Amino acid sequence: MTPLYYLDIIGTAAFAISGALVAMNKRLDPFGVFIIAFVTAAGGGTMRDILTGRLPVGWMQDINYMYAIIIATSIAIIFRKKLRFLSRTFFLFDTIGIGIFTIIGTEIGVKAGFHPVISIALGTMTACFGGVTRDILCNDIPIIFRKEIYAIACIVGAITFLVLQEFFENTYIIYIGTTLIVITVRLLAVAFKLSLPTFYSDNR
Amino acid sequence: MTPLYYLDIIGTAAFAISGALVAMNKRLDPFGVFIIAFVTAAGGGTMRDILTGRLPVGWMQDINYMYAIIIATSIAIIFRKKLRFLSRTFFLFDTIGIGIFTIIGTEIGVKAGFHPVISIALGTMTACFGGVTRDILCNDIPIIFRKEIYAIACIVGAITFLVLQEFFENTYIIYIGTTLIVITVRLLAVAFKLSLPTFYSDNR
Amino acid sequence: MTPLYYLDIIGTAAFAISGALVAMNKRLDPFGVFIIAFVTAAGGGTMRDILTGRLPVGWMQDINYMYAIIIATSIAIIFRKKLRFLSRTFFLFDTIGIGIFTIIGTEIGVKAGFHPVISIALGTMTACFGGVTRDILCNDIPIIFRKEIYAIACIVGAITFLVLQEFFENTYIIYIGTTLIVITVRLLAVAFKLSLPTFYSDNR
Repeated sequence: MTPLYYLDIIGTAAFAISGALVAMNKRLDPFGVFIIAFVTAAGGGTMRDILTGRLPVGWMQDINYMYAIIIATSIAIIFRKKLRFLSRTFFLFDTIGIGIFTIIGTEIGVKAGFHPVISIALGTMTACFGGVTRDILCNDIPIIFRKEIYAIACIVGAITFLVLQEFFENTYIIYIGTTLIVITVRLLAVAFKLSLPTFYSDNR
Repeated sequence: MTPLYYLDIIGTAAFAISGALVAMNKRLDPFGVFIIAFVTAAGGGTMRDILTGRLPVGWMQDINYMYAIIIATSIAIIFRKKLRFLSRTFFLFDTIGIGIFTIIGTEIGVKAGFHPVISIALGTMTACFGGVTRDILCNDIPIIFRKEIYAIACIVGAITFLVLQEFFENTYIIYIGTTLIVITVRLLAVAFKLSLPTFYSDNR
Repeated sequence: MTPLYYLDIIGTAAFAISGALVAMNKRLDPFGVFIIAFVTAAGGGTMRDILTGRLPVGWMQDINYMYAIIIATSIAIIFRKKLRFLSRTFFLFDTIGIGIFTIIGTEIGVKAGFHPVISIALGTMTACFGGVTRDILCNDIPIIFRKEIYAIACIVGAITFLVLQEFFENTYIIYIGTTLIVITVRLLAVAFKLSLPTFYSDNR
């Protein structure tokens, strides 16, 4: 029961809410809402566990993940009328989810002895895969392809995590610092409408 | 060579036929028909084996699965003109497939010592994943999202399986009872046009 | 550091270039171009490693694959104006990729003791999966479904590989012979506009 475990449960619940919000916005039925919430919440960790060979995948071995998803989805359904201003609430929970999952994925990569670049890629995939699947199933163009800053925030967060680990022993400082960086990058990107430079300026 | 093994082969062949029917309805070429049949038949078991870490996946280690798919697909192609009334034939083979795969997935979950809720989820995924992939590749909205009763039948079947296991030692009773429940739920759903209640009645 | 290892790196780079070309043709931003290049290059091997249980997947354990992808993508981006005649350049790199990946996948199947039919299927999947994912993410109908000769070339190549292995001990002869067969089949298919016979001639 490390702090990382509780963070993982919180991230799972946050992603479940983000998935439920998108699904309800698409007016899916209750069962469909739960499926989308589950896939969003469990997708990134499932991908991470498969790629790294940590099988059976995490959510199969610990029922608490399933409980977190069921409870979070129920809360989202019950309070759906109060959550009507979808985009801001969605952004909040989505950001909590990617902040936490970036840390967990990167940490697992570091502990498995992967090259830092691979650990960063693993953290980014863990954070992004659930949302990509959610968007594909709901027939949206994945948000990560529309606003690549989404993925950049994960990469910056994962690098921050690796750097902080060199300087601090206190895991709380590392976790909180990394999560704050991810949230800050996304907020700045939204506030200033940042996006990556394009190279098609040649009017090709 | 347990009864479950023969059921698995039968379910694989039934799903292959269901996949071939959908592919021929989309007028795919012979190679495309085989690919869709293969994905439909092998998809659920592949997903189950990956998630639970039973690797290499089952159909790679036992050539009989491949033979079952090739023979079933050939039969579907040869008799394609007699199978013209697609929807009823399709429903039959699809139902046999999901009935059997629900049992096998749930059983594997129970034997692996997973929580009952996880075993039910595993059985449902095993039964549904092949059909979802078939529908996505054929550019249909997955049937499971249009008629979520499809998944409900699996869940009810998986629960039946777990309950029957507590009361009977005879595996045949358990298998047949579970399969009949899945088929009955689907038939009732079609006959009475059952669907889950929606919660958007608030005209939102 | 077997010859197969160097071939694998070359095939990875070739597929990365093919992915980058498609992505730039869709005018994706630099980050999107890299993601598509990565998925195209790493997709087939990832699928192969997951199905056969060789986990963690190859590219996580050896940073050279990531370097090959980064360098190849950068080259494709830098020379994008010179590569303007997309389809011919694309065909070249795509063919190199599928030729090499077919060999590697089939060889892994043989060494794992799989049935020849399964080894052929594994080689074909290894060669095709990256391209299928590339096309789906770029919103094209996968080329493999439009021109199934794509997959036929892999299957013919994989069979050639198995046959040559019976008669030659020199791996170079086997590798080069197999790759040439794959390239020849694809070139012939393009030159003569070959395609599989259809069976819908009954005007159904």
